[in-house]
Amino acid sequence: MLKEKSLLMIPGPTPIPPQVAAAMTQPMINHRGEAFFTMFDEVAAGLKAVFRTEQPVYIFPGAGSGGWEAALVNTLNPGDTVLNVIIGDFGERWSKTAKALGFTVERLEFEPGQAAQPARIAERLERDTNREIKAVLFQHNETSTGVTNDVHAIARVVREHGALAMVDSVSGLGALPLEFDAWGLDVVLTGAQKALMCPPGLSLIAFSERARALAEQNTTPRFYWDLRAVHASYLKRQTPYTPAISLYYALQAALRLIKEETLEGAWARHKLMGEMCRAGVKAMGLKLLAADEHRASNTVTAVIAPSDPKLLRKTARDRLGVQLAGGQSQLENTIFRIGHLGYVTPLDVIQALAATEMTLALLGQDLSLGAAVSAAQEVWLRNLRG
Amino acid sequence: MLKEKSLLMIPGPTPIPPQVAAAMTQPMINHRGEAFFTMFDEVAAGLKAVFRTEQPVYIFPGAGSGGWEAALVNTLNPGDTVLNVIIGDFGERWSKTAKALGFTVERLEFEPGQAAQPARIAERLERDTNREIKAVLFQHNETSTGVTNDVHAIARVVREHGALAMVDSVSGLGALPLEFDAWGLDVVLTGAQKALMCPPGLSLIAFSERARALAEQNTTPRFYWDLRAVHASYLKRQTPYTPAISLYYALQAALRLIKEETLEGAWARHKLMGEMCRAGVKAMGLKLLAADEHRASNTVTAVIAPSDPKLLRKTARDRLGVQLAGGQSQLENTIFRIGHLGYVTPLDVIQALAATEMTLALLGQDLSLGAAVSAAQEVWLRNLRG
Repeated sequence: MLKEKSLLMIPGPTPIPPQVAAAMTQPMINHRGEAFFTMFDEVAAGLKAVFRTEQPVYIFPGAGSGGWEAALVNTLNPGDTVLNVIIGDFGERWSKTAKALGFTVERLEFEPGQAAQPARIAERLERDTNREIKAVLFQHNETSTGVTNDVHAIARVVREHGALAMVDSVSGLGALPLEFDAWGLDVVLTGAQKALMCPPGLSLIAFSERARALAEQNTTPRFYWDLRAVHASYLKRQTPYTPAISLYYALQAALRLIKEETLEGAWARHKLMGEMCRAGVKAMGLKLLAADEHRASNTVTAVIAPSDPKLLRKTARDRLGVQLAGGQSQLENTIFRIGHLGYVTPLDVIQALAATEMTLALLGQDLSLGAAVSAAQEVWLRNLRG
Repeated sequence: MLKEKSLLMIPGPTPIPPQVAAAMTQPMINHRGEAFFTMFDEVAAGLKAVFRTEQPVYIFPGAGSGGWEAALVNTLNPGDTVLNVIIGDFGERWSKTAKALGFTVERLEFEPGQAAQPARIAERLERDTNREIKAVLFQHNETSTGVTNDVHAIARVVREHGALAMVDSVSGLGALPLEFDAWGLDVVLTGAQKALMCPPGLSLIAFSERARALAEQNTTPRFYWDLRAVHASYLKRQTPYTPAISLYYALQAALRLIKEETLEGAWARHKLMGEMCRAGVKAMGLKLLAADEHRASNTVTAVIAPSDPKLLRKTARDRLGVQLAGGQSQLENTIFRIGHLGYVTPLDVIQALAATEMTLALLGQDLSLGAAVSAAQEVWLRNLRG
């Protein structure tokens, strides 16, 4: 096998387009000079378009999860209480972040595979008559379980209460519909290495006007993620510390590709790929982890493994050239995941399904070869015929 | 003029070698898989070699200045006092970082252009009979003034007192001699975009065993820069969050280049370039900012501008294709700086000197053309003849 050419179907880092790879090889420039400012403007405009906001979108050199810290330290005072809506591992981790930073965390948990029920969040917030809950934290798309929350509905109940609506959209933004301004969101964060088709290393985050106003007053000690410094630099088309220039080049190239496809086009492509993937998985006789298919993710599909998921992934990788993702934490021995976000097409989903089916056959499962692919083809054809 | 080909002589970001640029175009890989582990091992070994340590060197996705925060939050308890030795703007900024994070900062300042006097640090520490000073923070190389501190001598007096010796070597490490283990340093941080010849976006930091032990106990709230999580992941050849893979590729390629040149070879090259640059500057009749030439930096030369430094830089850039750096903060209208670190050769220094001389001539200064270059040539020839 030509090991070098392997299909990366994990939910991040995702494959990068050749234009993005090539963009990174551009020469270094002075980050306090005109060439940088010009790039800054284009990237800033492109990010506003994908976040659907008129607010600035700030770029930190850092991993996506740095955004968790930036969201909290800029809007909360020490000891403040947040309600953390947890539907999987990344919800858990945001909880840990908040606790580590000295905030009080109240958990509202849902079973793995379920989406958060806005009504249960509303019910909890109604009982908070003293307005002790300052923010509600939740995932747009829970990468570990392949479930998408109804951000719009959750934001509505949070706004009614008055708390800040803070959204981790690391594996959502750019692929799944999200309207920062129209839905009244307060903080949305993502990383560039998912639907935005860049290598990892940039943390992107938007704040509503009221969230940014809080950043001017709150007393939580902070330096690196301090919005005040970043916003002051933003107004000068700069960053407080040296920007990750090659990753800016990558982001600039990727945003051009998104503009060409249109954001709505990218949303539609991911919807199609999600539907194809689920149809194929079910045609193999496998079960989705998502309890309600209506809330199953269009960027990553979590599948109950019919046998040891580690052996399944190893076989797919070593014998068929397809890299699938495993389960995280308590799902480690239960599921495997197929990522389909970013620089991925319906044809890639076909390859992944064919290879998954062959993997199961190699592992001795009795199935009719081709069923997964034909189910996916049907979905695609229906889509093409409109 | 072919604007695209411009000589970047600023002290970071520095030019990147074609091998490093090309390395970044390699495909994305699973950061929890074998291919990443193999790269991790090579990079980890290469970093130990350039830091001159047996301790792990941790890689954070982030700007170099993130290391300032990581150094402090991992080793100090809230309110702890640090002694900050300030010889320029980057010392000032580390002070601000420490204050923003809730630590008590005592300043020990030296005039711009001067290096820190170890005796004055010793004297202050001797008076600290209650051992209230927990750490001494200082720059290896102060980028804003072009002055190099005597890290070895300072570390000696700090160790005698018992405080932690914390060194910002952002514009030093890889170019100027530094021995992490042999000099008994506790924390050394740098960024990859200077002497290490990579694009910006990685913060690199080493901790002594005793500094790391403190990280296990101290109570300062922290998440992103938390050494405990990073160290636990390090032992599994991983990082707690998605690593900046393309920048790892860049670092891997750059560390191979350094290994080929040898670290001692890189130190010697920078020493030569520093000497050439200073000889050329003096031959133009200009004055160095560094009070004691013995402590002038071999990675960046700060020069008293004979006329408006902004016009000087603009002329050099627009008419001669050479980018010089300006002064920072109170030195903004006083100096200009020539960066000579990273992927830079003695020939580049010759170009920079020739262009600077021509700039002065264009601006009406009376000088004998060629004097700067010939002075630099003499230094180089002497060096070549051994």
